[in-house]
Amino acid sequence: MSSQPPHPALLIPGPIEFDDQVLQSMSHFSESHVGAPFVKTFGETLTMLRKLFQTEDPASQPFVISGSGTLGWDQVAANLAEPGDDVLVLHTGYFADSFADCFETYGVKATQLKAPIGDRPQLDEVEKALKEKKYKLLTVTHVDTSTGVLSEIESLSKLVHKVSPETLIVVDGVCSVGCEEIQFDNWGIDCVITASQKAIGCPAGLSIVMASGRAIKSFQSRKVPPTSYFGSWKNWMPIMQNYEAGKPSYFATPSPQLVHALHTTLTQITSVPLADRFAAHRKASQKVKKAVADLGLEQLAAKPENQANGMTAIYLPKGMTPPDVLPKLMKRGVVFAGGLHKQIATQYIRFGHMGVSVTDPNRDDIDRAIVALKDGITEAQQATDLSAR
Amino acid sequence: MSSQPPHPALLIPGPIEFDDQVLQSMSHFSESHVGAPFVKTFGETLTMLRKLFQTEDPASQPFVISGSGTLGWDQVAANLAEPGDDVLVLHTGYFADSFADCFETYGVKATQLKAPIGDRPQLDEVEKALKEKKYKLLTVTHVDTSTGVLSEIESLSKLVHKVSPETLIVVDGVCSVGCEEIQFDNWGIDCVITASQKAIGCPAGLSIVMASGRAIKSFQSRKVPPTSYFGSWKNWMPIMQNYEAGKPSYFATPSPQLVHALHTTLTQITSVPLADRFAAHRKASQKVKKAVADLGLEQLAAKPENQANGMTAIYLPKGMTPPDVLPKLMKRGVVFAGGLHKQIATQYIRFGHMGVSVTDPNRDDIDRAIVALKDGITEAQQATDLSAR
Repeated sequence: MSSQPPHPALLIPGPIEFDDQVLQSMSHFSESHVGAPFVKTFGETLTMLRKLFQTEDPASQPFVISGSGTLGWDQVAANLAEPGDDVLVLHTGYFADSFADCFETYGVKATQLKAPIGDRPQLDEVEKALKEKKYKLLTVTHVDTSTGVLSEIESLSKLVHKVSPETLIVVDGVCSVGCEEIQFDNWGIDCVITASQKAIGCPAGLSIVMASGRAIKSFQSRKVPPTSYFGSWKNWMPIMQNYEAGKPSYFATPSPQLVHALHTTLTQITSVPLADRFAAHRKASQKVKKAVADLGLEQLAAKPENQANGMTAIYLPKGMTPPDVLPKLMKRGVVFAGGLHKQIATQYIRFGHMGVSVTDPNRDDIDRAIVALKDGITEAQQATDLSAR
Repeated sequence: MSSQPPHPALLIPGPIEFDDQVLQSMSHFSESHVGAPFVKTFGETLTMLRKLFQTEDPASQPFVISGSGTLGWDQVAANLAEPGDDVLVLHTGYFADSFADCFETYGVKATQLKAPIGDRPQLDEVEKALKEKKYKLLTVTHVDTSTGVLSEIESLSKLVHKVSPETLIVVDGVCSVGCEEIQFDNWGIDCVITASQKAIGCPAGLSIVMASGRAIKSFQSRKVPPTSYFGSWKNWMPIMQNYEAGKPSYFATPSPQLVHALHTTLTQITSVPLADRFAAHRKASQKVKKAVADLGLEQLAAKPENQANGMTAIYLPKGMTPPDVLPKLMKRGVVFAGGLHKQIATQYIRFGHMGVSVTDPNRDDIDRAIVALKDGITEAQQATDLSAR
């Protein structure tokens, strides 16, 4: 029995439903942020992140900072790039535009390589772009929350290492870490930024970053100091290293409650093989995508190899808009999200299938949502037909 | 009966002890950050902040952003100052040095006006400084968490308005909002930055800012765009205005759980006259300060008019260091903090007396802490005497 009161199942692409124990950790009694018990909790949390990212290189550096996923962009732009640097932003939707904005804020020149909606830049296009100009780093949105498009990180990273070996590979994993595999070391990734509230299954409020030894070296050899203060690794790196070494340290006050919740969910995640977790997400995703196809609906990500495993962006039947459908889903106890990609926001809805809704065998969120989607769309169609008479 | 398990009373100058209801709000079930229920909660929270700051000017703009108090500095440096601007930083301890660092990060020239440890810059010194150079803004730490020094905001603001009327008045209220009076409108303040985890009584993880209509106008007439992305008011202002108007809006995902907790504590705070709240803090502070004097100990803030009402920084007897005393207090069930001011960190301890520990009549935290302090110091003295033999 859940200790949470009855409520509609939150099946948007983040925040997601939370495990009872994780939520209870949010109510942890007050502790000093520099006292031994919390230092231990924070240190263990950082160490568990290494497992989640599958990195065993001691030079890799995790960061957990109060903020949202967006703060990860500032960390990249202000620590890994310098004013005047060129960076290449692979564009799969809303989030690349914003990441590019962030770079420009810090005086970094962002070149976007855009794919048509629902697709991702192809490797040969990336290769061509990398040969045309020297880029300090390349960013890729692993799963674009606005389109449900999955990018292929391993082959992309291999390509970058071959064609432009000095270019750092930065992955926006806000909607992928915890539900899509990331082999940080094996794939040669330099930085992944993510947030607490998606497939990691912790309430929102934490910016989570993993940086490679190579990224840290690049940071340490900057010509100018970091261009953000709150997001500066110069300020945070000693703090993270001290916490992980069990030593109290202070730059800005962390959120003990959120860190406790992150500790709880990471303990759960790392207690089973990661491969099982990713397989569970693939299986649930296949079920959702089959149901969507059975309803005669199409995904924004048309090609199967482009489709994320933690969410599905679904085109509505012609003439139907999110406000026609979302309240009918809510009535049936499930919350989906509307469109986010500016050009087509009124034409589609988003279904998040991540975390406990997928991995907890006592939950039937996904099955209920599939039924609700079918019934809700049917009801909306009937209403549309009636109003068209 | 508290629903929290037995634990040592956290009496550091933030985070502080939390009310049961506030902590329970941290476990709120997952909600969409753009769904009607949460939009209402967030909107009401912003409106209650106006009450806490005693501002009725509709042009005042509250901000609540995931982050720590430090993010407020970035917001000031990146939105209210421009690269090349001069700003005057009144120095009462550790936090002015860091705020100045933050300004320099954003290319803003910070001039510090320093006071001796335990004191604050005097009005005639401030007047002289303001007459020497044109400053875009002046910052003052209302209560310096490193020294327990209270600054006098009303007369300072009056002086700035008289001597340099174009200079914006920025108050670092991280350790003052909720326990020291701030009449935002009446005193003519332009910006107060604070955090959730001190006298506001909400767990850490939120940066809270109130900006005046004048500050917003100054921001809107910038020559260059804001120099932070995550901390940019250009990105956040429409979001805050929409939430307060009951309209969903998205820039970066807020933390619904933390905002619920903030909503709960602000509901409690604004349900009684603010004057009573400030009086309760003054009363508890007087009790603590009398006990400190009775023990023959001195405060860092020697002059009564310099002494904060939410914390006390206490010099230890000569030869005694925080590690001699803090474990003896912990053994007695109370947690104090060590020194933070770099030059004298080993010579003093800090006692926070804010929030429910002061306002909840069912709690005896302060009385217990006073007894523990007396007994702990005595025990430490005996140990020192023994080892000196």
